[in-house]
Formats: sequence, structure tokens, C-alpha cells
Amino acid sequence: MAKSHRLSLINSHLLSQFPALPYDNSLQTFRQRGSPLNASAILESYFRDMTPGVIRIRQLINSSKLFDHQAEVGMPTDQLRELVVRQIQEIYLAQNITPELDEADPWRSTQVFYVLGEFDASVATRLTVSVGLYGDTLKSLGTQKHKNLIDRVYAVHDYGSLSVTEMGHGSNVSMLETTATFDHTTREFIINSPTATSAKWWVGGVAKSSNMTALFARLIVEGIDRGIHVFAIPIRDYNTHEPLPGVVIGDCGKKNSLNGIDNGFLIFKNYRVPYDCLLDKHSSISLDNKFKSHIKNNDKRLAMMLGGILRGRIGTISLAEYTMKNGLTIALRYGAVRKQFGSKTQESAILDYQTHQYRLISNMPKLFAIRASANQMLSDFKSVRQKSRVDPECEEVQEYHALLSTLKGLSTQFSALTLKECREACGGHGYSAHSALGRLLNNQDINSTWEGDNTVLAQQTGKYLLKQIQRMYKGQKVTSPTLQYLNPDFDHIKNYKANFSNKEELLNEKLLFEILEYRVNYLIHKCINKLQTNAAKYAEVIDAWNNTQVFYVQELSKAYGERVMANNLRFMADDVLAKCENTGKAFRKLLHLFIVERIEKSLATYLEFAITPNQADIVRETELELCKELSDHCINIIEAVAPPDKMIGSIIGTSDGQVYQNIINTVESYPDVYKQASWAHLFKDIRKLTKLNSS
Amino acid sequence: MAKSHRLSLINSHLLSQFPALPYDNSLQTFRQRGSPLNASAILESYFRDMTPGVIRIRQLINSSKLFDHQAEVGMPTDQLRELVVRQIQEIYLAQNITPELDEADPWRSTQVFYVLGEFDASVATRLTVSVGLYGDTLKSLGTQKHKNLIDRVYAVHDYGSLSVTEMGHGSNVSMLETTATFDHTTREFIINSPTATSAKWWVGGVAKSSNMTALFARLIVEGIDRGIHVFAIPIRDYNTHEPLPGVVIGDCGKKNSLNGIDNGFLIFKNYRVPYDCLLDKHSSISLDNKFKSHIKNNDKRLAMMLGGILRGRIGTISLAEYTMKNGLTIALRYGAVRKQFGSKTQESAILDYQTHQYRLISNMPKLFAIRASANQMLSDFKSVRQKSRVDPECEEVQEYHALLSTLKGLSTQFSALTLKECREACGGHGYSAHSALGRLLNNQDINSTWEGDNTVLAQQTGKYLLKQIQRMYKGQKVTSPTLQYLNPDFDHIKNYKANFSNKEELLNEKLLFEILEYRVNYLIHKCINKLQTNAAKYAEVIDAWNNTQVFYVQELSKAYGERVMANNLRFMADDVLAKCENTGKAFRKLLHLFIVERIEKSLATYLEFAITPNQADIVRETELELCKELSDHCINIIEAVAPPDKMIGSIIGTSDGQVYQNIINTVESYPDVYKQASWAHLFKDIRKLTKLNSS
Repeated sequence: MAKSHRLSLINSHLLSQFPALPYDNSLQTFRQRGSPLNASAILESYFRDMTPGVIRIRQLINSSKLFDHQAEVGMPTDQLRELVVRQIQEIYLAQNITPELDEADPWRSTQVFYVLGEFDASVATRLTVSVGLYGDTLKSLGTQKHKNLIDRVYAVHDYGSLSVTEMGHGSNVSMLETTATFDHTTREFIINSPTATSAKWWVGGVAKSSNMTALFARLIVEGIDRGIHVFAIPIRDYNTHEPLPGVVIGDCGKKNSLNGIDNGFLIFKNYRVPYDCLLDKHSSISLDNKFKSHIKNNDKRLAMMLGGILRGRIGTISLAEYTMKNGLTIALRYGAVRKQFGSKTQESAILDYQTHQYRLISNMPKLFAIRASANQMLSDFKSVRQKSRVDPECEEVQEYHALLSTLKGLSTQFSALTLKECREACGGHGYSAHSALGRLLNNQDINSTWEGDNTVLAQQTGKYLLKQIQRMYKGQKVTSPTLQYLNPDFDHIKNYKANFSNKEELLNEKLLFEILEYRVNYLIHKCINKLQTNAAKYAEVIDAWNNTQVFYVQELSKAYGERVMANNLRFMADDVLAKCENTGKAFRKLLHLFIVERIEKSLATYLEFAITPNQADIVRETELELCKELSDHCINIIEAVAPPDKMIGSIIGTSDGQVYQNIINTVESYPDVYKQASWAHLFKDIRKLTKLNSS
Repeated sequence: MAKSHRLSLINSHLLSQFPALPYDNSLQTFRQRGSPLNASAILESYFRDMTPGVIRIRQLINSSKLFDHQAEVGMPTDQLRELVVRQIQEIYLAQNITPELDEADPWRSTQVFYVLGEFDASVATRLTVSVGLYGDTLKSLGTQKHKNLIDRVYAVHDYGSLSVTEMGHGSNVSMLETTATFDHTTREFIINSPTATSAKWWVGGVAKSSNMTALFARLIVEGIDRGIHVFAIPIRDYNTHEPLPGVVIGDCGKKNSLNGIDNGFLIFKNYRVPYDCLLDKHSSISLDNKFKSHIKNNDKRLAMMLGGILRGRIGTISLAEYTMKNGLTIALRYGAVRKQFGSKTQESAILDYQTHQYRLISNMPKLFAIRASANQMLSDFKSVRQKSRVDPECEEVQEYHALLSTLKGLSTQFSALTLKECREACGGHGYSAHSALGRLLNNQDINSTWEGDNTVLAQQTGKYLLKQIQRMYKGQKVTSPTLQYLNPDFDHIKNYKANFSNKEELLNEKLLFEILEYRVNYLIHKCINKLQTNAAKYAEVIDAWNNTQVFYVQELSKAYGERVMANNLRFMADDVLAKCENTGKAFRKLLHLFIVERIEKSLATYLEFAITPNQADIVRETELELCKELSDHCINIIEAVAPPDKMIGSIIGTSDGQVYQNIINTVESYPDVYKQASWAHLFKDIRKLTKLNSS
């Protein structure tokens, strides 16, 4: 019997073995708590210019038969990968995205990537890798002659990929081993994988899909290593889809999750490609075989090369956000429906318990702070891209990199830890594959690794920040708008005392930001001091640096990022307030809770200088009270931004609140739900092997 | 081509497309660091009396063809479930475990459960549920007439299960809905699932395997609800394996992990079972239909009923431990092999970076503290079981429950967070399904939920602790050996100052324990004060209690548990020292690091009273130095207790250190590794749908 037919029979109770279940009104009751909120005001502040696009694309997905999470549970890898291509085809092609339109308005493609990701990160990633990473690399590093390649990938005549990582090298891109040796007789590059570890690895879309890739390889001209360059090369025959001679393409195999992406490997064996494959915006080889580059330093040039794929890193922030959003939507709805303990006659919703509010609601503001930060980075993207094309080392570009690095790390960690809470908060039912929580957790998991390992990224932000304070020591001005509060006077910082003696005084926004800023200042000076101690202790500068990471540079980077996130969330809160005063008032609690929770988690730093033990208790108490106050609004707030049920794909987190009915329908839709296993005879067989004591 | 044949061809490089890889000596080099350690001393202190059994059963599994993690990657659920039965059969039946032998020496069966769990938690759980949970329930709640059932389940003539949880009730067992109504005319019980939510849910082994279950149901005698009682009932026909008339048995469907366990549901429709199914040790119904129980209070009786399945909760501690052990073994080995950054000529092993040491090594002592705690709980199990049969409310039994509750919560959280670090520390290669890290993470995940939700358990420990301090207020003595440091004088506690001014002074064991103990004392008084404030604030006692959880009762419970774990780890460290002085000296660093790390993570509490900001920096510095010192020993220490490679089943964490060769062999063993996808035509189809801009 077809699954859908079975399901309709179950829904009409023809097949069900379960006693009938009364309609559960719990979720609706929860929604009616608190003052009514204007959902549109929240939605529009959340998605800004993307709002109409998000709504439209959600509707497309919601009405498509190709998108069905329950059907994907347990689906074999190969079938899943095929389905993802069909899903991308259906949604992406309907959007008519051209390179020109995307260049003029990056939101246009971003919203497609985004909503596909709201459904599943596999789908978004596969599209982003081709159009976003491969396409952006062509745009940022190629020249006029590569324009047709850009057109081709946007029109999906080419399916692109980005070959950076090798089996032996991830973070340390400057040590990649793949070589592209220039042959001046034919003006070709001979591409080789000289070692097993130089095989390009985990390349998204390569195993079965890509015909083109942007290859990061070490350029060798006249025997001289000219550092990493990027080449747009064909890897599969355009017509037969077979790997081209000299190219070995393989499948990296099953992953913890995201199996809709066909990650593959590439091995090159004297593979020859024409000169024009070199993306030659920054470097070229003249007709008399001279290597020329307007960026002399290999490391700086590499930074430029990687700068082209910024949108990938912004994408990780969105990935952190939509997985977390779906997870919170599920867990909050489930928490409103699920009852346990309380009085004998009426058990309480678990979301009404302090412990449950703390685990879910105290994390909820992070979602909005992450979205607000992604919005900010996307808003600035166009102008930063423009500036970086002129001067890749200008102040704004450096700040943007520093920001993006810490925001990526914070967002992905916030999301991972919140999803863990969501899973646990849904108890046993949260462990069902149909709850979606496992998928969300495992999809988001790799996000701390790819597009820059979080630990490495925090170092980059830290380096930037320390440069700024060192400038101030020299009497120079810090121009970065996100660092205007920097103060070179450690004595002043150390003696700061936060001025509040109750909840009301603490919830003064000027004070809240001041407290966040003093933490950055405090940590930056502790870093400088530690670096000085370590400089005396270690012979090599790099060792002094590496041993100033834990508790110092890593924490500083986070503190800076949290202050930025709070500020971005304030913009969002202001936006909501401008649209609807009542909604803005409720929404503002998210901003307050975001900061108060961050202060609470950093009390071990604050108690060293700024906050007294009594104030620490006020911080904790305020946090719990804000959680409680928000418990009346949390369902309505999350639902204002959540995608439709079908896109979330969780049987325990649907908008109708019929958790148990959904569970019943799902288990009964398994064709074998009530059938004996084919291996039931094993139990009889075993009995023959043992004698009973008593027999 | 058969997978094994393929693999042997690949190993002999006949099929491989990769350049040859030189043998990688990195792991061996790491092992040779530091002074040599006596692995047996560590192993024997770790497993104590189980050591020979663990070694023997590991060998059995290691030489069996039925145990092969790589073959299980992507295996369909039904096939996996069948395989698990075969695995249990092969290992368990060879052990000749009878009820008598198990009663005399609980280690005998524990070591079988344990080593199967070291391979995979699915296998251990399925066996534990039948022999451990069902069997122990019969033993603790049944009488002479149930003895043959016990014999049957040990001999696997019956396959048992434990039906407690319902779709609508997990933690709140006293509100279970399933009814067992006594019919005095036939002296039968009529079992019913009166509502859909009363369906027994997630019952391990029920979906396809169990023919017997220990059913928790509400006993109704003469119309009076006598509270929850337990019934040993058949659910499937012994010969046909079909559900018995009146019993509906279904499959709960796919889970996030642990899919080797066939969790199922049960619905009863006027299902009649004879009187003797009642496990009647505590309650009975006389021939004149009078309900009799020597425990009058329903709640107390329920606690007794649940007390029978203590070994399940101890099992969760072991599950936390072996998943964490396997994860750490993988990540530490990988960290010794994987190199990134460093000098241009020689990159550094990632395990040599401070950030990496902090994420892995600072968590490593927890593994040993968890094992030491499981050992302690198992050692005490026999005597506590004896005492609980005489007086279930005696002091020792209460303390045991309080201990087990907090140890379960701490162990599972330590393991979950450490496994997260392990996964991230292995970067992209840690995301391969063949790395095992995803499986370990997802297997351990449910451990925070089942056998008592962690949040609920922490409340139970908290309740016990607060009772003890209230006794002291009344001038009574606290007899609990784990609470001899309790001090009713808050003024004294508040004024405590830890006395150390450098690393050496801090690493005084007497002081380290003193600091841990003052935290418990500090928090217990903060709890009492908060409870008093809340008592005035809330009308209901239960509300005052529920609102004293976050930052108070939950933290107190953890602080108490951490002190106990440290003490257990001290016993283990003493044991190692007694066996080998040099090894004992290195091992002792684990004890110090365990405590120092816990102090560091609790600085937000300590800075309120006991520790100054300068001392906080000493704590942090000491922690990092211990991590560095242990980096020379960590591989040898973890390998002393790790199971063989095949049982861990990770291609990136094998003892030969050939990470990249393993990866190559694995991906090339996929039959389709180099094949075109059947759906490759989709890319051609898509091209027909779009026009190129430039064409």
C-alpha cells in the first residue's frame, strides 16, 4: 500500500489500533497568553528585504511534492542525493537568477539558498557550493574571459564546486600540495596530486555531480613555487559526465549527516588544462613565460583568493540560525503541549517549569541575534566586496573579516548547544528520527569545522583586535565602528564597577552595553599582559601566541563578537518597535535576555573586577525572570519567523499541537509496524542452544 | 565483488587510484614521549575485578566475524536489528550466566553488558533490557512462583522487556494510565490501555523480539486504585511469536541512533492474565479479594518498584564512559597523527596546540572519574540491594539513590560534551560516518533522557542533600560517608578563603578536596536561603521548590556529585600508585586536573567567596600546565584502557596510526566509489530547461 494512501486511511482511523485521541488544545492555549503580538512586525524585522522572497519561496516548497522530510527518513544515500538535485532544479530554476541580478542585489540569490536551507542544509549547501562558492570565485578572481563560465553556472549548464581542502590539509591552505605546473611550450598547466594526502577531499558536489571545479593549487612557473592560485577547470566530460582523462573522481562515502551532499575527492595525474583556466585577476604569466602578480606576497595573495568565497562563511551563520530556529520551534511547541507532574488532576506543561524555561528560553534570543548579525553582514557585503576589489587590506575589509570570523564561531556554537538543549528538552520523543532534532543537530555539527575551523577563526579575530589596541598605545585612533569603546587605560578598566542594585537598574540598555564593552576591554588587556609574559617565556613568537589562546585570545574574540551581536539585535529590536509598539516592548526582552544571559555565563570574568557577588545574584535572578516573562510570548515570537510545518518536518513540533496524533500516524504509516520480523525464528533457534536450569 | 575481497585488493594496491603513502610513524613517536608507563597497572585499576573478564570478552568479540562496524555503516534498520540478536547470542551464550551466579557476583553479567557496550550501545542495551531490567524486576518484586521465569530469561528461552514509559508519561511514573483491573470471579487481571497516550512506548526489544514483559500498570481492586504495580506477562505466543489476542505490538520507528534496538509500543485491549502474573512480593490480593500490602503508601511502593531496576541506571554511567572512552581514543590518536600549521618544513601535531589539549585533555580525567564511580556503585550494589530488601528507606539506600542520581546526570553530560569536543577536534574527517564519532555522539545522546531524566534526577539528589543539612540544623548527626564535611555554619563557609598562591600550593590534594567541599557547603546554604525567600513568595511549596532549581538545587546536586567523583578517582589513583610508582605519579595528574578543571568551570561561584581574581588565574594556568604535562602521557594512558580497534570501529583512530591509508581503503571499498550515478542524466535534462545568457 502506498505510504500516502496508508496515511490517509490511518487519519480516517480505518487502520489505527489506537484508542481515539481527543483534540489537544494546549498549544493554542499557550498562544493566547500575554498581550497579542504583531507577527508581521517581527517577521519583517527579522528578514528585512528578504521578507517577500522568503514568504514566496516557502510557499513554493510547501506546495511541492518533492519536499517531504518524513519520506526522507532512512532514505538510502544515493536516492537522497538524486532527490536533492530535483529539489534544487524545481526551486532554483523558477527564480531566474542571473549573474547580473545577483551582483546588483545579493539578497536575490541569498534568499533562495536560505529558504532551501530552512528545509534542509543539504539542499542549500549543494546549491551554494555551485552558484555561491564556485560562481563567486570566478567573479572575484577571474577576468573578462571567464564571464561565460559565470553565466553557465548560474544557468546550471555547468555544475560547479570548490576544491580547496585536501585529505591532509584543511585550515592551513598555504600548505596545499596539489600542483599546477606551467608548461611554456604549450601554455598549459599540468595538474598533479603528488601525494595521497594531496587528493582534494570532501569537495561538495564532486562525487557525482560537478563538471567544473575551482581548483586551489600551487602554481609552479619555471621551477619556482608561486604560491596558491585558483583554476577553473573541467573535471567531467560535458556530454558523457565521465571524468576526463587524467582526473580521478571518487566518493568520500557516508557522513554523520548531510548525506544529500555528494562530497567527493579528486586526484590529478598529469592533467593538462589550457592557460585560460587560471583565474588571472591578480596573477598572470606573460607570453615570454614571466610570472607577474600585483600582489607580491604569497600569503597576502592567498588571503585575496579566499576572500572571494566570503558568502560561504556568511552562509554558515544562516545555517546555524535556521537549524536553531527549527529546533527551537519544535522544542517550544512540544514544551507547551507535553505535560508532566504538577497536580493530580492537571499536570503542568513542561515549558512552565523554571528548568525548562532556562534551557530553551534563555537560548532563544541568540537566534535573533544571529539573524540580525547575518543581516548586517549581508547588508555590508556589497560595499565590502567593492572595497576589497580596490584595496583588499583596507580597514573596512579587515574589520569585516574579523567580524565574520567571530560571528561564525559564536553562531555555530550557540546553535550547536541550543540544539542539544532542544533535543534533551523533548525527552524520548525528541530521539525519534521523525522529531527532526537529530537531523538538525547533526546537520549543524559540521558547521563548526567547515568554512574555517572555529578555533582558527577566533585567532584571526583576536589578532585584529590586538592590533587595534596596540595602535591606541601608540596614540593612533581606532576607526572601526565596532570598537569605539576600546580603552587603552587598564587601570581605569580594572577599577570599573557596574552600577546596579536591582533588576530595574540592570535592565538599563546603556548599562548592559557598557558591561559587555568592559569585558572586551578587560580581556584585551589581560591578553596583552599574557602575551608579554609569554614572549619572555618562549623563544618563538608563534609559541607565545599559541600559548595565549585558551582563556585569553579565544575569550576576547568571543566577547567582542557578543557585543557586536547584541548591537545587531538592538537594531532588530528598534525595527520591531518602530513597526508596533506593543510587540516591540515584548521583543525588547529578547535583547535584554541576550545580554543578561551572556553576562551570567561570563560571571567568572566579571566577578574579577566589575560585578559583586550580590550583583551576580541579581544577574541570575533577572535572567530567570526574563525567561518567565518571555514564556508568555515565546511561542508567538518563534512562530512569527518559523517556516511552515512541512519544511521543519517534525512530528512533535507541528503548529496544530497534535503531538500524539502525529506520532501515532507516523508509526502506523510504517508498512511493517505490526508485522513479525523475518528473523523472528532466531529466538526459537537460540532456545535449542540452551538448557533451562529448572528443566 | 565482495567487500572484503575488494578491501584486500585495495590493501595490496591492485585497485587503488591513490599515490602510494609512506608509513606514518607519528602516533608511535607520540607514544614514546614521557616516561614509560605500566599499562597493566592502569587497566587493572580501571576495571578491578572485571579485568580478566573484560580482556576475555574483548578477545571473543575481536575474533568474531559478526562484529564489524564498517559493515554496519548505512545498514538498513531491520538488518541491523537481526545482526544485534546474532551478536548477543554469540557472546552472551558463551558466558553461561545463571541467575544464581549473577546474584552471587553481579560483575559476572555486568562485564558482558559492558564489553558488548564498548562495541556498541545498541547491543549492550538489548541484552541489559532483557536480563538486567526484566530479570532484576522479577528478582526484586517477584516471589518463589516467579523463579522459573528468571531461569527462562537468563537462558534466553524468554526474551524480556520492561514496560514502564507510556506515550504520555515518562518521568512521572505515578501517573501512568495503563490499568490492571482485578476480576475476582476468575482471579485474573484485565489489562487495558484506556487512552492513546497510555500505549506503552519506546519499550526496548518489544517491537520485534520480546515474548515477555514486566508491565507497570495501575492496579484496580474492587474499584479502588491501588497504585502502580508490576506484572510479568506474556505478550507474544511462545511458539508462533505472534502477539497474543488482546495485545497490539507495534514498532516505534527509526530513531536518531541506536537503531539496533527494536523499540516498540504496546496497546492492551481487555487482555486477561492470570493472578500469578502479579509480582507479589509487596502486595497481594487474598482469596476473599482483599488487597494487602506491607507498604501502605502508594508513592513509597512505587519507589520500591523502581528500585528493582537500579542496574539500568548504573548501566547509563557505563554507557557514558565507554562512548567517551572510544571517542577520546579516536580523537587523541588522530590529534597525534594530524598535523597542521607550525613551521614550513615540519607542521605540528594538532595535539601539541594549547587549544587542542584544552579541548581534549582537560576532559580526559572525567573518563576515569566516571569509571571509578561506576565501579564504586557496582561494588556497593550487592550490599545495598540486600539492605533495600530489608528496609528500602534506610539511610544507606537513600544515599545510594542520591548518589546514583547525580552520578548519572554528571556522567552523561560530561560524556556528551566531551564527545562533541572529540568530533570537532577531528575536523572534517571526524564527520565521516566511518570515524565512529557521530555514532558515539548520537548513541550517548539519549542517555541524558532515559533511566531518569537528568533534570529530574538532580532534584532527587538535591532533596536528599537538603534533608541532611536540615538534620544538622536540628543538631542531628549526618551519617552519610559522602557528606561528613557538611557544615551548618554559613558564616564560617562564606568567609572561607582557599589558601594557595601558586601552582604547587594549589596541587595539594587536601586543599583541592577542601575547595570542592566548600562549594557544596556554600551552595547548600544558598539553596536554603533561596527556598526560604521563595516560600514567602509562592503559595504552594511545590512552586517554591520548582523555582529554586536553576543556579541552586541543580548546581548543588552537581557540586556534590563532582566531589564524590573526585574521591572515587582518588581511589583509582591510589590503586595505580600501589601497583606502579612511576605510573601512579603520571596518573595522579588526572586526579589533579579533574579537580582543577571543575574549580575553573565553577569560578563564578568561587569568586563569590573562596578564591581571589589572582588565584583564579593560577587555577587557569595550572589547568593548562597539567594538560600540557599530560599530553606526553595521554596516548599511553587512554590506550591502556581502550578496546581493540575493531571494537571502536573508527578509521581515523586506529592503533597503527595510519589515518590516511585507512581513509583511502575505506572509500575505495565502496563498490560505487568511482561509478557514475544512475541519475547523472538529470544534469543534461536541466540544461534543456534553461537558456544561457550569452547564447
